[in-house]
Amino acid sequence: MKYGIVIFPSKALQDKANSFRKRYDPHYALIPPHITLKSTFEVNDVDIKDIADQLHQTAQRFAPFQIKVTKFSSFQPVNNVIYMKIIPEPEIVDLHEAVNAVIADSPSEYSFVPHITVGQDLSNDEHSDVYSSLRLQEINHEETIDRFHLLYQLDNGSWTVYETFRLRKE
Amino acid sequence: MKYGIVIFPSKALQDKANSFRKRYDPHYALIPPHITLKSTFEVNDVDIKDIADQLHQTAQRFAPFQIKVTKFSSFQPVNNVIYMKIIPEPEIVDLHEAVNAVIADSPSEYSFVPHITVGQDLSNDEHSDVYSSLRLQEINHEETIDRFHLLYQLDNGSWTVYETFRLRKE
Repeated sequence: MKYGIVIFPSKALQDKANSFRKRYDPHYALIPPHITLKSTFEVNDVDIKDIADQLHQTAQRFAPFQIKVTKFSSFQPVNNVIYMKIIPEPEIVDLHEAVNAVIADSPSEYSFVPHITVGQDLSNDEHSDVYSSLRLQEINHEETIDRFHLLYQLDNGSWTVYETFRLRKE
Repeated sequence: MKYGIVIFPSKALQDKANSFRKRYDPHYALIPPHITLKSTFEVNDVDIKDIADQLHQTAQRFAPFQIKVTKFSSFQPVNNVIYMKIIPEPEIVDLHEAVNAVIADSPSEYSFVPHITVGQDLSNDEHSDVYSSLRLQEINHEETIDRFHLLYQLDNGSWTVYETFRLRKE
């Protein structure tokens, strides 16, 4: 089965992201707005229980932490993805690293850029139009992250939550 | 914020339900196929933490249990909802009761009919058409339920998981 690991930000931030995703993100109906910690990986039904247990242990080593969203950005020229940029503070970078250490597949070739996607699969013209207006908007949002989730993908491409992991270090 | 409590059945059962929901359920993109334990209720951000803690305690009193899906059924004449019927064995009925005891709002006027909705908001003609074909289909599916989830609703009507509760009694 295909799994992924994400953080769902607060309802307020998800609602804001969705106001853009509705128009600019074809994945709008497949998954709520999220910060990806580990993108799609394939695991069988037996191993996933072990992985879930390890992720519980990982979560116990982390305390809840603050994230700051400051602006919209884009992955262009790599791809036409527009996103809300999250400051890569040590806490979220460390959590990303710890979560990826649990899944024993090939490590990502990309460095971790914590973000919430609000637009993707845009044509070059669409991307320019949307991004040129969004890049001027300032965002000044801060909130606490205290959990992350393990999800699996259904045949229709949508994602269901398998388990929640609360950051429990005090 | 608006919350709800559901069981997500296995991927196999969700995929099967979605093959019908895609055509017959306007909520198809808002939430994965599910068994509702507690429908929408309103709680503030502080009380929900207490409720989550209580739900963890509830989950510890229950062992994983089997559910059996045997056929399609309909809530007509109450409403034009078509669903996969889950045998109301004591385990799921007890879990429903325990979960509802945690949320201190007005108790439901309806008796609990465990089910997975596959069609709703159908016109009378649509309902007759779809149900007359589905009611002849036999389903013979059994699986283990070992967790349930607390969800909240976004402004666009879709649902995000807040927390997972594993049935931990051995």
